[in-house]
Amino acid sequence: MNTSPTPFARTLPLAPLGDDTLHQRIQTALDQKTKPQGSLGQLEALALKLALALNTERPQLLQPQLVVFAADHGIAAQGVSAFPAEVTRQMVLNFLAGGAAVSVLARQHGLALTVADCGVAADFESHPMLAVLKVPGAEHGTADSTQGSAMSRAQCEAALQQGRRLVAGLPGNVLLLGEMGIANTSAASLLMSRLTGEPLAHCVGIGTGLDAAGLSRKHKVLKQALERHAEAIEPLDALAALGGLEIATMVGAVQQAAASGRVIVVDGFITTAAVAVAAALQPRPTDLLARCVFAHCSQESGHARWLQQLGVRPLLDLGLRLGEGSGAALAWPLLPSACCILVEMASFASAGVSGRSDTAA
Amino acid sequence: MNTSPTPFARTLPLAPLGDDTLHQRIQTALDQKTKPQGSLGQLEALALKLALALNTERPQLLQPQLVVFAADHGIAAQGVSAFPAEVTRQMVLNFLAGGAAVSVLARQHGLALTVADCGVAADFESHPMLAVLKVPGAEHGTADSTQGSAMSRAQCEAALQQGRRLVAGLPGNVLLLGEMGIANTSAASLLMSRLTGEPLAHCVGIGTGLDAAGLSRKHKVLKQALERHAEAIEPLDALAALGGLEIATMVGAVQQAAASGRVIVVDGFITTAAVAVAAALQPRPTDLLARCVFAHCSQESGHARWLQQLGVRPLLDLGLRLGEGSGAALAWPLLPSACCILVEMASFASAGVSGRSDTAA
Repeated sequence: MNTSPTPFARTLPLAPLGDDTLHQRIQTALDQKTKPQGSLGQLEALALKLALALNTERPQLLQPQLVVFAADHGIAAQGVSAFPAEVTRQMVLNFLAGGAAVSVLARQHGLALTVADCGVAADFESHPMLAVLKVPGAEHGTADSTQGSAMSRAQCEAALQQGRRLVAGLPGNVLLLGEMGIANTSAASLLMSRLTGEPLAHCVGIGTGLDAAGLSRKHKVLKQALERHAEAIEPLDALAALGGLEIATMVGAVQQAAASGRVIVVDGFITTAAVAVAAALQPRPTDLLARCVFAHCSQESGHARWLQQLGVRPLLDLGLRLGEGSGAALAWPLLPSACCILVEMASFASAGVSGRSDTAA
Repeated sequence: MNTSPTPFARTLPLAPLGDDTLHQRIQTALDQKTKPQGSLGQLEALALKLALALNTERPQLLQPQLVVFAADHGIAAQGVSAFPAEVTRQMVLNFLAGGAAVSVLARQHGLALTVADCGVAADFESHPMLAVLKVPGAEHGTADSTQGSAMSRAQCEAALQQGRRLVAGLPGNVLLLGEMGIANTSAASLLMSRLTGEPLAHCVGIGTGLDAAGLSRKHKVLKQALERHAEAIEPLDALAALGGLEIATMVGAVQQAAASGRVIVVDGFITTAAVAVAAALQPRPTDLLARCVFAHCSQESGHARWLQQLGVRPLLDLGLRLGEGSGAALAWPLLPSACCILVEMASFASAGVSGRSDTAA
């Protein structure tokens, strides 16, 4: 029997954000709290964002889920990373054993941690924290994008579907993004250059710690890949050609999170690539970005510029360049802080505190 | 009977910091964790600082104490604040009732909160969270420093003693500093100008939200105070002349915290003033600063410059300008995160993760 498959949907319908009336009510509530107006700076903007994303005056962050999307990259064979490719597999085991930075931080903050094998060059024994999301034909990673397409378009779409299904099955109303994959700053740099039009030199950095010669080599390799796929302009074509199975899976995860009305916490350079692709697929990218909290500005060259191009402001700037979701986990407590400010603080009226004496404001 | 009192000690002996051997051991431990060297940026520097301050390879932060030092200021009569002076009293009641920003954030993070009445223009009913640290003759605040000395030297010393005694009676190994006092950015600006030699214009800001006319008035008033006390150069003379009972009490608290080997978490502009005075009293200011974690760079004009002059780097930059210890509480989770990284993360060897492939490093 020949069943015709459902055609692939490039986007999912976004959950509605709070409207202008809610926006006004939240701003008024913030302004009436016992503090000079605006004196909590970016925390007030964060409280407003979370309330609008969750479409409520009393936002509560429930069962936050941190997912580390892991995969291997064919382009690693070109010597673009300071670390050997087997580190992807080894770090997956380290995440599962609880010894990695993100493991430790997730434990500290009570974040549920899932590790998604989106195409690691290994087959893991089953583990309660492991989700196997391998894509047929790319079970052990992408192809080398200097030699051909990293994934086929069908594989890319399958990865998005895997990401959507994963998030649909997770509880809670917050998704924190993390990733692992030796050479994945290469894929992210290629996507940055393609999506933003920035020259490659503005998009390439040292990743896990290349020296000057390594960086120069990486730039040459990426230039080759970018030129080979000059025709891959449409976001999903670019994603398929330039790669990252973990990035593609994350794009789907972000879409599903936005469709189900969740808050999305973005980590560093590679997770920003996934969000940028997901945003580029939307008719109005800002509708998707409105539910994204950018945890930090990475030290990876290019990240600051990309954040600026997206028109977003990160919470932390601690010189991090680890990935894994470590920056998302470090910034995490600021989100419940912002909710507490909005929900639990007294108002001038309720606390009997006098307002300004110098103006009518 | 005429007993001769113990002479006042301007400083207390500092608890020893970890030595070079410990420093080396901690750096090696951090470098062997499963992450590229240095990839956790400022968090690694924080882990090192905390380990040296607590003089151990396995730092643990125990029973953190957040103290809000509150007092009123005679100079408020000159119209240097956007808010009326009675707000100090009202906010103390708000802290005790649990409705202020710092109350909410301390609750979120399990920080024990104490409110110290260092000279508020009110007499409060007793409350389990309230410590009454009023100084004889200045029970309701300082005098107006444009008209005379804010405190006598004896009152200033008494305030330091109160701060020392308070901290000596608190458990734990971390002190987080907060403050409340209408017009206390004025006292802090005066101290900044006097201690650093910076022109007053670099030290004065809008506080709780002055408009341009208010800021200009504030500058004129502070100029008058600074000129009146041109001879008050020695740090405690400057503190007595230019004021702040809550600042003086905090100086003592910082001294005692440093003497008892605690970590000190500094909030914004006013708490920085207290730490700067305490550091200036030391033969080697960096010995005291080594146990201070600067939580954030405030939006109060002058704070960034003062931090730079002290040679320290804050953790957050969120445009905060509230005080109360709110920034210290917001940054707090980064401290246990830094400890977890050092104590709980696996090493390359223990996790069986390969090192760099490109160099011998």
